[in-house]
Amino acid sequence: MAEDELPSNWARWGDDDQFGTLNLIDAAARVRAAAEVREARHVSLARSVDPVPLTTGLGPVASPAMMPAGVLQMVNFNGAKPLALTDSLVINTHNAALTHLDAVSHMPVDDHIYPGVPVQEAVTPTGVTHGSAEPFTAGILTRGVLLDLAPEGGSLPADRHIGGADLDAALARTGASFSSGDALVLRGGWDVNRPLGQPVPGLDLSAVRWMDEHGVSVYVGDIGDRRPPEFPMPVHQVALARLGLPLVDAAGLDDLAEVCASLGRWTFMLVLAPPRITRTTGLVVNPLAVF
Amino acid sequence: MAEDELPSNWARWGDDDQFGTLNLIDAAARVRAAAEVREARHVSLARSVDPVPLTTGLGPVASPAMMPAGVLQMVNFNGAKPLALTDSLVINTHNAALTHLDAVSHMPVDDHIYPGVPVQEAVTPTGVTHGSAEPFTAGILTRGVLLDLAPEGGSLPADRHIGGADLDAALARTGASFSSGDALVLRGGWDVNRPLGQPVPGLDLSAVRWMDEHGVSVYVGDIGDRRPPEFPMPVHQVALARLGLPLVDAAGLDDLAEVCASLGRWTFMLVLAPPRITRTTGLVVNPLAVF
Amino acid sequence: MAEDELPSNWARWGDDDQFGTLNLIDAAARVRAAAEVREARHVSLARSVDPVPLTTGLGPVASPAMMPAGVLQMVNFNGAKPLALTDSLVINTHNAALTHLDAVSHMPVDDHIYPGVPVQEAVTPTGVTHGSAEPFTAGILTRGVLLDLAPEGGSLPADRHIGGADLDAALARTGASFSSGDALVLRGGWDVNRPLGQPVPGLDLSAVRWMDEHGVSVYVGDIGDRRPPEFPMPVHQVALARLGLPLVDAAGLDDLAEVCASLGRWTFMLVLAPPRITRTTGLVVNPLAVF
Amino acid sequence: MAEDELPSNWARWGDDDQFGTLNLIDAAARVRAAAEVREARHVSLARSVDPVPLTTGLGPVASPAMMPAGVLQMVNFNGAKPLALTDSLVINTHNAALTHLDAVSHMPVDDHIYPGVPVQEAVTPTGVTHGSAEPFTAGILTRGVLLDLAPEGGSLPADRHIGGADLDAALARTGASFSSGDALVLRGGWDVNRPLGQPVPGLDLSAVRWMDEHGVSVYVGDIGDRRPPEFPMPVHQVALARLGLPLVDAAGLDDLAEVCASLGRWTFMLVLAPPRITRTTGLVVNPLAVF
Repeated sequence: MAEDELPSNWARWGDDDQFGTLNLIDAAARVRAAAEVREARHVSLARSVDPVPLTTGLGPVASPAMMPAGVLQMVNFNGAKPLALTDSLVINTHNAALTHLDAVSHMPVDDHIYPGVPVQEAVTPTGVTHGSAEPFTAGILTRGVLLDLAPEGGSLPADRHIGGADLDAALARTGASFSSGDALVLRGGWDVNRPLGQPVPGLDLSAVRWMDEHGVSVYVGDIGDRRPPEFPMPVHQVALARLGLPLVDAAGLDDLAEVCASLGRWTFMLVLAPPRITRTTGLVVNPLAVF
Repeated sequence: MAEDELPSNWARWGDDDQFGTLNLIDAAARVRAAAEVREARHVSLARSVDPVPLTTGLGPVASPAMMPAGVLQMVNFNGAKPLALTDSLVINTHNAALTHLDAVSHMPVDDHIYPGVPVQEAVTPTGVTHGSAEPFTAGILTRGVLLDLAPEGGSLPADRHIGGADLDAALARTGASFSSGDALVLRGGWDVNRPLGQPVPGLDLSAVRWMDEHGVSVYVGDIGDRRPPEFPMPVHQVALARLGLPLVDAAGLDDLAEVCASLGRWTFMLVLAPPRITRTTGLVVNPLAVF
Repeated sequence: MAEDELPSNWARWGDDDQFGTLNLIDAAARVRAAAEVREARHVSLARSVDPVPLTTGLGPVASPAMMPAGVLQMVNFNGAKPLALTDSLVINTHNAALTHLDAVSHMPVDDHIYPGVPVQEAVTPTGVTHGSAEPFTAGILTRGVLLDLAPEGGSLPADRHIGGADLDAALARTGASFSSGDALVLRGGWDVNRPLGQPVPGLDLSAVRWMDEHGVSVYVGDIGDRRPPEFPMPVHQVALARLGLPLVDAAGLDDLAEVCASLGRWTFMLVLAPPRITRTTGLVVNPLAVF
Repeated sequence: MAEDELPSNWARWGDDDQFGTLNLIDAAARVRAAAEVREARHVSLARSVDPVPLTTGLGPVASPAMMPAGVLQMVNFNGAKPLALTDSLVINTHNAALTHLDAVSHMPVDDHIYPGVPVQEAVTPTGVTHGSAEPFTAGILTRGVLLDLAPEGGSLPADRHIGGADLDAALARTGASFSSGDALVLRGGWDVNRPLGQPVPGLDLSAVRWMDEHGVSVYVGDIGDRRPPEFPMPVHQVALARLGLPLVDAAGLDDLAEVCASLGRWTFMLVLAPPRITRTTGLVVNPLAVF
């Protein structure tokens, strides 16, 4: 396929835009989100991560771990009579064990970052100056729609490619509509960190075109690009890099699917509140669905 | 003052309780929170932090920083032809530059952690087994009330002690009521990370008694214990350690105060969604107020 | 045994001494060391350590490791067109995988550091102010004597306790003498990092008395305190803590034993040149024996 | 200048050689080194570095530092009743504050590492597989010769370019000869980490040709490439990258120069014993000169 046939927003919101499809979250999208909140019941869309100990290990007291890990921990010494106990964390943001937001600087296209800034200007050894996760740190709040591709706690076959027609079918099952500015929450029933070296199902280009046409503002998935990958990778190299569509990778959506099924309702207010840290290629995040 | 006259919840919710005053957030509190959401407008209550570069520094290219910093960054090498750009962060959770949630294990009382677990059982070199921030990582959602002690963008005098009467007066100014299970968001107009070695205003024991009597579930403040400290420290050693009241330290509340003043409304839905990481003494957090 | 019967140098070289038994390395010891150097052949007494990757880990590409590890590595990004490749290391100094020097601050006795400085004065959250490894960083150079307790590549039984008589017997086998200020290099044929949870042979108090009486300046061993430990631990809590005798833990001595056997010579110049870093409780080291 | 006129050892010791000019250290060089050792007096050629605190920082207790720093420290928590005190270090190897050894993988030439291995094969996100500092970790021991370009504690002018004739003149001042396999220790009287953004004197290509012709095995300098740089950088891009000549950057040579002047002797045994860690682009080192 010719590069210029891929969907793209590089010329849509200005040469130095850093919000990408977050620009689609307008007052109407917010009002739709507010209308979803009734009992303030909430569900976390993040996987829980146990940190791996980074320091100490005096004697032969180590334990097995997979490294690099998503999160590592140092428990700190605060003097011989501690008034307080503290620890510090190392966060490997893009680790597949960790639910995280990808910023557009995570994925260049021909050495350029959305919407066309040279990598060398955008990313330096001392941090990201264009296309960082900073725009997300004010918080992202919009209406979310869960499309469950593997209902009743199932999981997609490992070699399954998800296309636009699959999204249409899943949306039809919810009885809901999808409006521009809404967030797409997509469940395939996978923990993408688990099957080392094994195939993982993922989206194809027609699914990304669907996202473009439906005005998806944010993507939250427990699946994304398939493994082994195809190129261009539809989710990372087209949706993120060309549409400027922020991705939540490695979400945990089983609890949400259960709640949605029990309520018979597949829409909610989605709240993303990553740590307010500048200059990164992405940030750990704990997305909440509020009903 | 005798220790046994200090307010305490150690015997209130069981010997191994880890939720503390989060137990006060009941269905009614959630309904109150839901009722606050109208336009889904949101405001971040976190300060923004620029990470300090941790690695590289080939030549004499270092820059001045205050160390230890709240957040440090490593930009990673991903092979000679990078398909992706990634970075990793070190988070010094309890650093005063960083808006963060204190877990009850942060502060022992006579070598015991709320509600009476010996430190040696609760905190190990490889993480926290009792009283970690894990209960917060499912997300905390309740109604929040902003009490602004220094209205119109002001700031409290450095030597000011805030008592229960001050909270009553500030609450009266809002015209709102405070119900058990609500979160107290308290603005003094301070950045507690700034004035190195200088006095900072803070709460006295009568303010903590007020929190106990009003059923505060969570405290979010841009002030907390005063400096130089008095002992027992009312916020950390009484509210957190004895009441089991989770604290958000070093919040940034100026934006919120402006929005509240412009709306003439001092109540909102408060959403806390820290990273879903187990075994810590606290977690970085980006609290959102939703109107 | 009464505490006051344990050998001690706390009153020997002054109240704020930081050199401990390094004080025994006099001009005569140096001349003995120089006399050992003939062909400038050298042997490393350090185990080789593969660092564990700390950062990156984009996809599910992690590998199994024991954590905390002795050394972890970050490979750094230096811009899109790298002129140079760099990496950074995390060193967990006292990890048993790593040959390292223990400073006297590593091991308090009743909350005091050799030769009697309170822990709270000596060790702070921002580093060691008394009893750090700094005195070692000028380099340590003296005559070394290898005592091989398990000749011909053997290894001691796991439950073996080594006493002064064992050291006498091993010294007799070498045909050499041991003079005050010499370094004791002791081979038991063990990698103390390996047998997790298994017994490891070690020295008893009579061996430490032997070291005291013979004027050992530095101890380099592939065994040290036995596991499970006895208290007081002879090597760490008596030799290091009371005699102020610097320890090289977790040495690798098989190569040295082979060279000594092939040369029929068990003495050499020992060179310790740890990184010149202040304020630590110990430092990684690569001891060299020079013949 | 044409690339093919630059001195190079890429075809000299085989396609996968990792020792570079260390191959020049033969038995004769070692015997020369041994002959220098008389009293076993030693001098460190490393600068001393104070670690910067990395973790903790509870309250506003930070101190100013230049970041990234050469060494950072974490003091660890080892349980409520510590039997032992430990700390961990982060080492930014190539930081100019730190005396360190450059491995040949540090500096590619046209995306190839000495002696012609593609960068993508040699350096991975999980470490260096060709051209790492591992060959140095067995220890390097040879005869060293100090050439003092700024005698009597002086320092070179900031804009000075050092050529082969300068090395000849300095060698003549010592009265010594330089033989193939010897180490060149070059003093310019500079701390290259200090003058941020200021010019620093350095070697030109004729000095590197001198090193090639004289069979220098290792370079230890308090100066190296000048700043602002010229290209190709003579020391890093020619000596290291093309000759495979290991470099000790940012040495501290004032003490050595004083000792040499007082002894009237400019030759010694040089001992390099970096930590025995594999897969790195370089290692911190504390070179010792032994007389």
